[in-house]
Amino acid sequence: MSAFTLGLNTYVVPFSMHVENRDRLVKGMKEAGVSTGTILLRGGTASERDDTDHENLFRQESYFHYLFGVREPGFWGSIDISTGDATLYCPRLPEEYAVWMGKISTCLEFKIKYEVQTVKYSDNLESSLRTSVKPIFVNKGKNSDSGSTYNPPVLDVLKEVDCDEVKLFPVLCDCRVFKSEKELALMAHVSKLTSLSHVHVMRSVTPGMMEYQLEANFSHFSYYNYGCRNMGYTAICACGPNPAVLHYGHAGAPNDRVIREEDMLLLDMGAEYHCYGSDITCSYPANGKFTERQRKVYEGVLNAQRAVFEICKPGTSWVDCHKAAEKEVIKALIDLKVLREVEGYTLEDMVEMRLGGVFMPHGLGHHIGIDTHDVGGYLEGGKSKEENYPNRLKGAGLKSLRNLRILEEHQCLTVEPGCYFIDYTIDKAIADNDLGKFIDVEVVAEFRGTGGVRLEDVIAITADGFENYTLAPRGIEEVEAVMGGAKWPPMKDVHPELMRKELLNM
Amino acid sequence: MSAFTLGLNTYVVPFSMHVENRDRLVKGMKEAGVSTGTILLRGGTASERDDTDHENLFRQESYFHYLFGVREPGFWGSIDISTGDATLYCPRLPEEYAVWMGKISTCLEFKIKYEVQTVKYSDNLESSLRTSVKPIFVNKGKNSDSGSTYNPPVLDVLKEVDCDEVKLFPVLCDCRVFKSEKELALMAHVSKLTSLSHVHVMRSVTPGMMEYQLEANFSHFSYYNYGCRNMGYTAICACGPNPAVLHYGHAGAPNDRVIREEDMLLLDMGAEYHCYGSDITCSYPANGKFTERQRKVYEGVLNAQRAVFEICKPGTSWVDCHKAAEKEVIKALIDLKVLREVEGYTLEDMVEMRLGGVFMPHGLGHHIGIDTHDVGGYLEGGKSKEENYPNRLKGAGLKSLRNLRILEEHQCLTVEPGCYFIDYTIDKAIADNDLGKFIDVEVVAEFRGTGGVRLEDVIAITADGFENYTLAPRGIEEVEAVMGGAKWPPMKDVHPELMRKELLNM
Repeated sequence: MSAFTLGLNTYVVPFSMHVENRDRLVKGMKEAGVSTGTILLRGGTASERDDTDHENLFRQESYFHYLFGVREPGFWGSIDISTGDATLYCPRLPEEYAVWMGKISTCLEFKIKYEVQTVKYSDNLESSLRTSVKPIFVNKGKNSDSGSTYNPPVLDVLKEVDCDEVKLFPVLCDCRVFKSEKELALMAHVSKLTSLSHVHVMRSVTPGMMEYQLEANFSHFSYYNYGCRNMGYTAICACGPNPAVLHYGHAGAPNDRVIREEDMLLLDMGAEYHCYGSDITCSYPANGKFTERQRKVYEGVLNAQRAVFEICKPGTSWVDCHKAAEKEVIKALIDLKVLREVEGYTLEDMVEMRLGGVFMPHGLGHHIGIDTHDVGGYLEGGKSKEENYPNRLKGAGLKSLRNLRILEEHQCLTVEPGCYFIDYTIDKAIADNDLGKFIDVEVVAEFRGTGGVRLEDVIAITADGFENYTLAPRGIEEVEAVMGGAKWPPMKDVHPELMRKELLNM
Repeated sequence: MSAFTLGLNTYVVPFSMHVENRDRLVKGMKEAGVSTGTILLRGGTASERDDTDHENLFRQESYFHYLFGVREPGFWGSIDISTGDATLYCPRLPEEYAVWMGKISTCLEFKIKYEVQTVKYSDNLESSLRTSVKPIFVNKGKNSDSGSTYNPPVLDVLKEVDCDEVKLFPVLCDCRVFKSEKELALMAHVSKLTSLSHVHVMRSVTPGMMEYQLEANFSHFSYYNYGCRNMGYTAICACGPNPAVLHYGHAGAPNDRVIREEDMLLLDMGAEYHCYGSDITCSYPANGKFTERQRKVYEGVLNAQRAVFEICKPGTSWVDCHKAAEKEVIKALIDLKVLREVEGYTLEDMVEMRLGGVFMPHGLGHHIGIDTHDVGGYLEGGKSKEENYPNRLKGAGLKSLRNLRILEEHQCLTVEPGCYFIDYTIDKAIADNDLGKFIDVEVVAEFRGTGGVRLEDVIAITADGFENYTLAPRGIEEVEAVMGGAKWPPMKDVHPELMRKELLNM
């Protein structure tokens, strides 16, 4: 058995995971009415920064990784649909490669390492494709998160033979939406280590530190202890007003503020292992003790998670989950007197009027896997039922949803409600004819500049509910205890309603 | 005064450094006979991974950084040659940017932050260029390290007006070769913190650890303590046979070996601060004590550094430095009986026959600055003397030289001799009619698989010599002492011949 691991006690990913992924794709193609032909994918290529020879650290392209798990750049892969046999095409490297880049693996070594039927050199690719079973199915389609199109490779042979650019994409995306047991085990692992890295950071926080020092502590802990060289995405380490910037941490806003005694922190970080990433957010006070107001905002967001968890099972619409979360956030804001109840309007009316979108302008969560915003949330066509793929919704919050599916077993998602005090959205709401009347301008002013709270877990839908792969401290007493030095994981799970798998199973 | 800093006690880079860089470029253009016109450069743009919305962490394009030091993506910059006045063009961001990415800076804020005369929105770029002084000079030329061409921007206006693609590139590269006092101070700082990060790693090594844990320790130390979010290049953390792979550490050979008791380690890592990077290599035994053989190989490489330092001053040819280093490596290998002296051949003959290239197939070093392999090592044309730019040399080692200049004051370079036992180059040499007779096949066999040693310092050429910005332990007794827990920097500099500036100045 061949496997990916980084030694010591790091996780062992069997390459049979990718064999299964290929089998599932072939099965999916057959269910879509395609019984013969050849699937062709191009792996990621090495890249340099601008015109220089600075080599960017290669990370495999996600579709290719799903099917083949190859770590090196410059490969191609094909699968014969009728037999399921896979062929990898590796670059033929010059002898001098050994001097600069390392031992050159033989085709036989790659065949054993990656558990495929055949390995050839990529200079044989075009001639091999000429004799392979037709049509050749290549991947082409739009990513609904980026709006970018995955473009099929350009090869002479593809102009000469029967080539299909339509059928592969929806089936391949759908395969990635429904994780296998081995993929789920890996997602559970990477979410566990991400949780423990958050706990490490939580214990290291002291007012006076810089935000980026928390990023440094997180990435060190997850790399040193678990072999995670890459983060799933750029770390968001926000304090003070910065949690109100949803994608804080990028080069233009690079986690460079001093953490102050009175700040709430919002830390959104996820490690990646063998190209599968997690995505977990923790929020807590810099000094380890919640004020009354911080507590109420926080509890509102935690209640939003609880409300989602109550309905999280196959058959539930993700839109309903989103609205259930918003409702709890609105309730907390009413309790804080930021929002006022207005005669003639129920809580449900306030939700439908998109008041939640003022304080939580993002969607509730997204599919997660090889990409942080994993594919398939808006997939059109494919094998699944038509009603799973309506058009993008309108209105604050809803329009930002990255998933419109009905929940089904083996989907892996983030649940990440939040409550933020963002001048731009608050000012717009105050000026709005419909929403303005609900907002207490004076009370909300007291919250401006205090940032916000987000709690984000990674869950997987099961046959009759879900499992929560996150095991971060969530209850206020848990957070305060851990920040005060208490053991984690705890001796007793005092919040079984959060369904944290590792804690439930203790 | 505006400046870049990451708070706490991190280094403060005044933006006047970039003002000076622009002034030097304007002066250079005037010396090249250009007294009027407008210089135009495009800043780096944000990028996403493949078709996904995974945002790559933005790092400014190097030429643009040199002139403007802008941290955000999507800018343009221009300089009026006759007045020296600079204009930045920033993207006009949608209001919703504030929700996701953060506060939108005004043009005035950017003007103050980046110390330019004017800031406009980039949607005014083309109309501004229509009224600016002609010709417009854009950057175009080949990078001699990557072989890639820096391509000028494509704009309608550039097709309509007088546009020059020739004159800017050599002058701009030449400016980057000769560092200003502020740039040298920054290079000294980043080399100091890189040295101290290496010392941190050196103290953390224990047999049984994984190579990548040393990478994790280095990047954590330099980010947490000095604000270095990026490494200058992918970390090379090689043990056992791996030091013989010159660019070990990339995704196909990712620092994933267990460190064993008897291993020599080769660690080549450099931190980057405000886009200026260092590049330092340390080599030492995993268990902290050199064996007799390890000592002899190491001393040979250290003597190679000493030999280079003896001649390192304005007027010396870099090729002569390279050969001086090779000579010491050959002497060590003769002492080890890996090489034998053959009647009729002097040591100089052995150097000229390229025997050094068998055991050190790379060049002695390279310019360093905003790029690790900084521009200008092979520049043709430009203001400097013709004899500085001969064609690339032939022969093992020499053909890999990244610099063929005569040394001049204010150049910043690495000095990185090495001695490696690489099967591919050794086998080729044994089979070679000229070189085979020098190699003792049986003795060299005992060294196969033991990797190699590289020592790499960052130096700057001064009016009458050079300064060494590296302050890593280098003497064998220094390395053994630090690995045993001794203080660093030491109380007394026992190797003043290594010219480590910080230690000499103690």
